[in-house]
Amino acid sequence: MMRLPVMHRSVIIVAGGKGLRMGGELPKQFLPVRGVPVLMRTVGVFHDFDPGMSVVVVLPVAHQGYWHELCRRYSFGIPHVVADGGETRFHSVRSGLSHLPSDGLIAVHDGVRPFVSTEVIGRCFDAAAGHGAAVPVIRVHETMRRVDDAGGSVTVSRDDYRLVQTPQVFDARLLHEAYDCDYRAAFTDDASVVEAAGHAITLVEGNRENIKLTTPFDMTVAEALL
Amino acid sequence: MMRLPVMHRSVIIVAGGKGLRMGGELPKQFLPVRGVPVLMRTVGVFHDFDPGMSVVVVLPVAHQGYWHELCRRYSFGIPHVVADGGETRFHSVRSGLSHLPSDGLIAVHDGVRPFVSTEVIGRCFDAAAGHGAAVPVIRVHETMRRVDDAGGSVTVSRDDYRLVQTPQVFDARLLHEAYDCDYRAAFTDDASVVEAAGHAITLVEGNRENIKLTTPFDMTVAEALL
Repeated sequence: MMRLPVMHRSVIIVAGGKGLRMGGELPKQFLPVRGVPVLMRTVGVFHDFDPGMSVVVVLPVAHQGYWHELCRRYSFGIPHVVADGGETRFHSVRSGLSHLPSDGLIAVHDGVRPFVSTEVIGRCFDAAAGHGAAVPVIRVHETMRRVDDAGGSVTVSRDDYRLVQTPQVFDARLLHEAYDCDYRAAFTDDASVVEAAGHAITLVEGNRENIKLTTPFDMTVAEALL
Repeated sequence: MMRLPVMHRSVIIVAGGKGLRMGGELPKQFLPVRGVPVLMRTVGVFHDFDPGMSVVVVLPVAHQGYWHELCRRYSFGIPHVVADGGETRFHSVRSGLSHLPSDGLIAVHDGVRPFVSTEVIGRCFDAAAGHGAAVPVIRVHETMRRVDDAGGSVTVSRDDYRLVQTPQVFDARLLHEAYDCDYRAAFTDDASVVEAAGHAITLVEGNRENIKLTTPFDMTVAEALL
């Protein structure tokens, strides 16, 4: 049986958040969930999926010392490169990218999404291998309204919308080329950067548990999920 | 000090779901969270907000016996009327409405949203007293994409959208008049019915914990929230 050669996989894990929304001093990626810091859990899922994957963790310079200390304290053994975080997510991803070559496939993932399933990671890499760019999405269960500048709003069809998660996976060359541009405020994720460079995005099914831990409520949910 | 007369408040709690998404036999509104069935928790929040409120619980005829048995077993003492559930949410709400007069204010709430805060309930009633129709909404934290019939999709600005929760509160006369119409598939909530009748909807801030319990994952979260 023929087997296709597996393209080398890398992941940029973005942990640039200042953690302001948590209310405390400790940035949320460092908070423990059932005794293990969120960021270590996140790195661990990708390592479980493919132990040969290159891992780049992007952290603000001011947080790197704390991270290294945490890694010692927890005897965290998964090899990874630490890249300097930038002013926005866009700049942080570009910083992480500078550590990676232009071949193979590159995933970009939020450091505060430790509940992505390995199935979803696999699905994104497979779709990106075939189509160049893939992101996991979930449907909207709630009724949605679109608001206008005048303070009004109308119901829109929720079936027409998807909520985007990470990992967002791309052909490495495509991602490098897309990020060779000026920052725009509309760049809320990596797909929007690649899309602005003219490439279509393939949507794959995400897992609903893959929430972004941004509030104290999310941390309560996280404890429950484990 | 002048005090405005408080308009009489009613709530229609819709528990029409067949519970198919839970995987089990028991409809989700009857599942216990920390020992108390979801629907009893939901009724309890409205009773806590205003013990004088009229409560109508809408249940499929096939579930009403089980509900009455549950009420006995738990010595559930909050007075309420049980109305027959219909084919869709629209029909269930209309059935509940038939038990209520055309004056005062009427809230419509999902039976599987036990985590609405009394602050949000109050905010909705206050806004509806002033403007006739009010719904609680929350902002979207995720990147959003709009999909098209051809299988493509584009990023849209998440700041332009809101996710709609319940309770949706209306001037009673307005709600009765709006529901005096034929069912349409676009009616995914009560605001869309009132909107179709030509009335603007006021948006107020919801609480993020006010989730709709529809999946086993949601039930895990619910346990954690208590």
